[in-house]
Amino acid sequence: MHRFAIRVRYGDTDQMGFAYYAHYLRWFEIGRTELLRDLGMSYASVERDLGVLLPVLTAHCDYKRSARYDDRVWIETAVAELKRASMRFAYRIVHEDGGLLAIGYTEHCFLSRDGRPVRMPVELQQLMDRAPRV
Amino acid sequence: MHRFAIRVRYGDTDQMGFAYYAHYLRWFEIGRTELLRDLGMSYASVERDLGVLLPVLTAHCDYKRSARYDDRVWIETAVAELKRASMRFAYRIVHEDGGLLAIGYTEHCFLSRDGRPVRMPVELQQLMDRAPRV
Amino acid sequence: MHRFAIRVRYGDTDQMGFAYYAHYLRWFEIGRTELLRDLGMSYASVERDLGVLLPVLTAHCDYKRSARYDDRVWIETAVAELKRASMRFAYRIVHEDGGLLAIGYTEHCFLSRDGRPVRMPVELQQLMDRAPRV
Amino acid sequence: MHRFAIRVRYGDTDQMGFAYYAHYLRWFEIGRTELLRDLGMSYASVERDLGVLLPVLTAHCDYKRSARYDDRVWIETAVAELKRASMRFAYRIVHEDGGLLAIGYTEHCFLSRDGRPVRMPVELQQLMDRAPRV
Repeated sequence: MHRFAIRVRYGDTDQMGFAYYAHYLRWFEIGRTELLRDLGMSYASVERDLGVLLPVLTAHCDYKRSARYDDRVWIETAVAELKRASMRFAYRIVHEDGGLLAIGYTEHCFLSRDGRPVRMPVELQQLMDRAPRV
Repeated sequence: MHRFAIRVRYGDTDQMGFAYYAHYLRWFEIGRTELLRDLGMSYASVERDLGVLLPVLTAHCDYKRSARYDDRVWIETAVAELKRASMRFAYRIVHEDGGLLAIGYTEHCFLSRDGRPVRMPVELQQLMDRAPRV
Repeated sequence: MHRFAIRVRYGDTDQMGFAYYAHYLRWFEIGRTELLRDLGMSYASVERDLGVLLPVLTAHCDYKRSARYDDRVWIETAVAELKRASMRFAYRIVHEDGGLLAIGYTEHCFLSRDGRPVRMPVELQQLMDRAPRV
Repeated sequence: MHRFAIRVRYGDTDQMGFAYYAHYLRWFEIGRTELLRDLGMSYASVERDLGVLLPVLTAHCDYKRSARYDDRVWIETAVAELKRASMRFAYRIVHEDGGLLAIGYTEHCFLSRDGRPVRMPVELQQLMDRAPRV
């Protein structure tokens, strides 16, 4: 899987002392964005140059162990499914000590700038074909 | 289902002009908190007086339609499952025009203050027995 | 001053057990938005119908006492200064027990949709003339 | 000044297409945390080992130019003032193209774990004496 490291910030913690559960979805966003970038295209360019948005249809996260303040964690991302009209990213959030913190996925469709569902652009398809798979 | 209204704030939107997908998990938190409060116990008191934390084991959200800036939306919350060692809340995010924006659920276990898994406290059980169910 | 109540949510707290300091700027946004709404115009309509954006030039907050989880706090908002090309809102964050939690201000300019600085639209000026002042 | 790079994420943007103004305070937190780390002590360790919290007394930000989605920006941090009972960090947010996006500062006091104001611990003082100054 593609790997990208982030650090749990003070503003990410809650009064339990753990990273608040909604932030994991932000981490998923960072994971899929950096996966795309490493494949050679920024998500900014997907929106701007391919003219396609990838809104989230479904987000799912299973929390295994808590992330704490200042923990350095890996966001691991891979492509789990590629279809004509949708795709799925899979994620693992892993502590730098190797412990698994969470697993999850997001499912996306493709929308044109004016909000119509479209097929996955061929340029994106070709990019995704080279992505790590699970 | 229990209903609580919130408004989409500027800081909730992203450059698509929609509420960012992670904020729905925050709305779920507001929903279950206000459900508890209306049953007669604040979640603050669950932590402080019953000495039990309800960390999230799983969060899931299916996004149906986008929420936009300044939209007033209903967070609808109900209890979907009550077990000895875990419970599940179900949510619907509904636009004030009646349109369904998202459905989701969160699953929780019960932890003592020192982090050990415990059974649902009887006071919480009694409260939950009076909650709206789906 | 105009008053609007919000509640400190779990996701707002940090591991000190207090509301994270950046969230106060979000509360300021809620304050000025609800002030405008009570004067008869939503900020959404300012952007859409008057075609003017009010980006923040300066934000300032003095933190006096901490807000804690589930605290109900008042956002008090008033207009502190109205000029042709800019305006200033003043804020007080007040605990429901009456204690002052924070004071602050934001300064805004007026931009057309294409990003040029413009004068305050006359409709907004008339609205602001009726706003509470400090 | 100390420099640390971050990237503007989708969840940071608002419907103007810019980074929402409250996130700059989060960036300031990242800046002072990484400044401390590079001096040899994590802020986590300041709280845990020195037993002192550095709550924010004042936060101030002047916004000069907007940060946009996926922009890579530098957080530049320095110590602006060291006093017995308080200290001030100064920040510059700089686009990777060199353009100045924002300047600001935060003022902090020192609290013991039980919430009493204390003097700056000598270990922190020694650390801060080696920090970049403005």
